[in-house]
Amino acid sequence: MELLIIIVQEEDYPGLSRDFIRNKIHATRFCTTGLYLNKPNVTLMVCIEKDREEEVLGYIRSNCKERTEERQVSEFNGMTMVDVTRSVKIGGATVMKGDVEKLLKF
Amino acid sequence: MELLIIIVQEEDYPGLSRDFIRNKIHATRFCTTGLYLNKPNVTLMVCIEKDREEEVLGYIRSNCKERTEERQVSEFNGMTMVDVTRSVKIGGATVMKGDVEKLLKF
Amino acid sequence: MELLIIIVQEEDYPGLSRDFIRNKIHATRFCTTGLYLNKPNVTLMVCIEKDREEEVLGYIRSNCKERTEERQVSEFNGMTMVDVTRSVKIGGATVMKGDVEKLLKF
Repeated sequence: MELLIIIVQEEDYPGLSRDFIRNKIHATRFCTTGLYLNKPNVTLMVCIEKDREEEVLGYIRSNCKERTEERQVSEFNGMTMVDVTRSVKIGGATVMKGDVEKLLKF
Repeated sequence: MELLIIIVQEEDYPGLSRDFIRNKIHATRFCTTGLYLNKPNVTLMVCIEKDREEEVLGYIRSNCKERTEERQVSEFNGMTMVDVTRSVKIGGATVMKGDVEKLLKF
Repeated sequence: MELLIIIVQEEDYPGLSRDFIRNKIHATRFCTTGLYLNKPNVTLMVCIEKDREEEVLGYIRSNCKERTEERQVSEFNGMTMVDVTRSVKIGGATVMKGDVEKLLKF
């Protein structure tokens, strides 16, 4: 079994969760915050068989889009932290894949 | 060391946490949501020595019960998502076991 | 790539996040609770290249301090759970290091 930790933008979550439910992918949702932009996002934890990995990545690919936003961000200017407005690219989704040795249900 | 990610129903959490505290199992609690039923649950992260794994699984086994509930769930009927009432079995606990290479304390 | 799961006290979070942002360490923040003291803390998930591990541990080391606090805690006295006041040492940070097989961005 594999563990996928999937970090997505809040805007992309409704479509992705619909695809997961439709295809009986069990997931656990964590409400999280991205550190750099201090922006709420959604982290999903999914444990699946190795042979469904590509399928799950397909749902992510088709629902999660990169966006560009004008945001005030904190940056270090060499002396101190300053708030500046930047066009920032917000990634569509980040997926970390790890190994699950065992999956148990009680 | 091993990482156990334990997803339990909110109803089972008080008993389980009592057993963990009583036996000095250190755990971190995440308030989470199950995707399929959109129902709040609790995810616990525990890092333990391999030889305490069976002990921890015993506490989970004795506190976490499968339940059947009448729930309105969203399902795909081939055309669109529809809300239907279903008797759904809610698992007592799901445990994912992974490997922790190193545990550091500062 | 490596996954670092970093559990820190809320008091230490502002300094640590400043160092992470300053050095472009991407992290996801989870609001969590320590089981034993039932005290809110912060869990950060960071995925980094192996050769930046020591650097990240350095930021943790310099921001996260062990504290001693008078706290009311629940303990098992052999018969039942009782609330007692204890001087408890609260660890500065706990870091679990695991392996990330793959990191994908969409």
